[in-house]
Amino acid sequence: MIYLDNAATTRPDEQCLAEAAVYLKEKYFNPSALYAEGYNLHRALGGARESILSHVADKREYSLVVTSCGTEADNHALFCGGRRGNVVTTLGEHAAVFSAANELKARGIEVRFAPLNGDGSVDVRELLALVDDKTSLVSVIHVNNETGAVNDVNAIAEAVKAKNPRALFHADGVQAFGKMPFRLSRDIDMYSVSAHKIGGVKGTGALIKKSKLVLKPYIFGGGQESGLRSGTENVFGTMMFRLAADRAYADIARSFEHVSALNKELWDRLDKGLFNRISPEGGSPYILTVAAPGVRGETILHECDDAGLLIGTGSACSSNSKKRYSRVILACGIDEIAADGILRLSFSPKNSREEVIEAARILNDIVAKRREIMS
Amino acid sequence: MIYLDNAATTRPDEQCLAEAAVYLKEKYFNPSALYAEGYNLHRALGGARESILSHVADKREYSLVVTSCGTEADNHALFCGGRRGNVVTTLGEHAAVFSAANELKARGIEVRFAPLNGDGSVDVRELLALVDDKTSLVSVIHVNNETGAVNDVNAIAEAVKAKNPRALFHADGVQAFGKMPFRLSRDIDMYSVSAHKIGGVKGTGALIKKSKLVLKPYIFGGGQESGLRSGTENVFGTMMFRLAADRAYADIARSFEHVSALNKELWDRLDKGLFNRISPEGGSPYILTVAAPGVRGETILHECDDAGLLIGTGSACSSNSKKRYSRVILACGIDEIAADGILRLSFSPKNSREEVIEAARILNDIVAKRREIMS
Repeated sequence: MIYLDNAATTRPDEQCLAEAAVYLKEKYFNPSALYAEGYNLHRALGGARESILSHVADKREYSLVVTSCGTEADNHALFCGGRRGNVVTTLGEHAAVFSAANELKARGIEVRFAPLNGDGSVDVRELLALVDDKTSLVSVIHVNNETGAVNDVNAIAEAVKAKNPRALFHADGVQAFGKMPFRLSRDIDMYSVSAHKIGGVKGTGALIKKSKLVLKPYIFGGGQESGLRSGTENVFGTMMFRLAADRAYADIARSFEHVSALNKELWDRLDKGLFNRISPEGGSPYILTVAAPGVRGETILHECDDAGLLIGTGSACSSNSKKRYSRVILACGIDEIAADGILRLSFSPKNSREEVIEAARILNDIVAKRREIMS
Repeated sequence: MIYLDNAATTRPDEQCLAEAAVYLKEKYFNPSALYAEGYNLHRALGGARESILSHVADKREYSLVVTSCGTEADNHALFCGGRRGNVVTTLGEHAAVFSAANELKARGIEVRFAPLNGDGSVDVRELLALVDDKTSLVSVIHVNNETGAVNDVNAIAEAVKAKNPRALFHADGVQAFGKMPFRLSRDIDMYSVSAHKIGGVKGTGALIKKSKLVLKPYIFGGGQESGLRSGTENVFGTMMFRLAADRAYADIARSFEHVSALNKELWDRLDKGLFNRISPEGGSPYILTVAAPGVRGETILHECDDAGLLIGTGSACSSNSKKRYSRVILACGIDEIAADGILRLSFSPKNSREEVIEAARILNDIVAKRREIMS
């Protein structure tokens, strides 16, 4: 089986799993317990938070709140950051931000959505035009999960702060963390990340935040995570996140190069008479989104599955919704005919050249046959 | 090592771990993915929800929303259930309900706290007196996590509905689920449960709710959990919960009897000149809370740790707070001198008679020596 749906989730790293198994089997204590076995876990969690954080931010200025997923981190940022005036975000956000923004709107907060460029990145000029002195929060996705378009969130945050220094800036970094070499500038107040997109396990994310930023908790209770996120700490998930992030960052430049080569190889081998490229050339190499106009993406996906190739169509996270076309893809200005045949091919550093060569062959075959049948 | 802090967390069941490992190692797909491997997980999750639910409720009338922990389930119930008028709860709630109730208060909702009886159960007459036609939500803990006192939530819910049929009734069932033979009556609208208290893993809980009850989501995004709880599903955690619950309920009567015998054996063997009983006689056998007046609980806990016995002092979930005395223990009417020496001994069906005999010996020795030193 060839797995090219790594933007939806990755296979947990086996070495990390082997190392973290101790937190399921022996060190299963409650980190809030006062005996040494509990306290040692409390300290291990502190080390994990600092380690995860340090890959993208200065630990003297930022701290990290472990959450149950990237979605919770995004919700925390939106609901606790966007409490007054207006909130500015984009039409290219993941549902975790987009739906939270719509909920804020339903609660009476004015929410302004900036339009996208054709590749899925935000139109920065339009975004900045929406920011005014009443803006309490600006939220921009770092790497678009449907096209791989990269928003230069450091530069955007700087421009936002120049217009309104009191506005908070949040970026959803779920598709960037552990993949793109990047560090948070001081203009970014909050940054959401997720473990299972980089070899960790589902059920763990984090909100990285300026330590000085006073943020309300989103989940209230026993006061874990310095009072910012209550609930018994998911020790195994957090330690897996730490281990997976450490591995990802140890090799980040080499992985980036390897995945860039995979992405290029796959695109080079796709029949340009059958496939259009949706992803920008300069986007994240981890995502290659293409359209096979005239053939339904879902049909291709199922035939690929039969052929042993797993791929995505748009965002897996929205697949429960009844909407046939991706909101983000349509916001890129792509027409419905092309949007119908959208395929997202997403990589992990563990994919091989042989896999993508075979994937290209399968995709070319399937779409060519479909076209033949239809004509 | 003797582990008697099972109300804080339990050791994940080894057989369940072995069975669920497949969801970390092979079936790691995103359940929202459209290919068969994803859809099969989607179906497996549906089966897990129904199975967990069916142990305590009629699956034709109730459904289950998987959350990241019991705390999140409590927060969901409180913040989405208590949106108008007043909210009635008790002084004996876990911090997950108590802090959420205080947050509701800070947001302008009137919150009324019913006082406790001496054993930690709620004074039902006083509780009912607080319910009126403006009450939107009543939340009562099923088994008190600090004393093991049982609130007859079915009867209380019935009495609440008799006074105000439109009031929602929520019970925090975290210390009851998988331990006490019990089924939800139709008067209970929402019921919170947690996996890691019964041999599952940390990071998974659930809110069981009446299917007909229209509840807003608390975490917004891709629309997972029928739109009620977004975020990529924690498949491993959910399947572990299912397996652990199935095991717990397969043996629930025998486990209850076994744990009752352990509880009795331990209490019988504790020196009554050194220890007072805080837990009620008719409470959950899974929790035995005692006080060693004049000796600090934390001191005993650390000396027990050195002797290879792990126990709790009050609720582990509140141990990050600076407060020296347990809010719940003080609400029972226990004075500060006794509250200082509170110990919570909590059992799992896997504890043995030999373990509790040894635990009693260690506790008697340590407290006797402390008393000697002090006198």
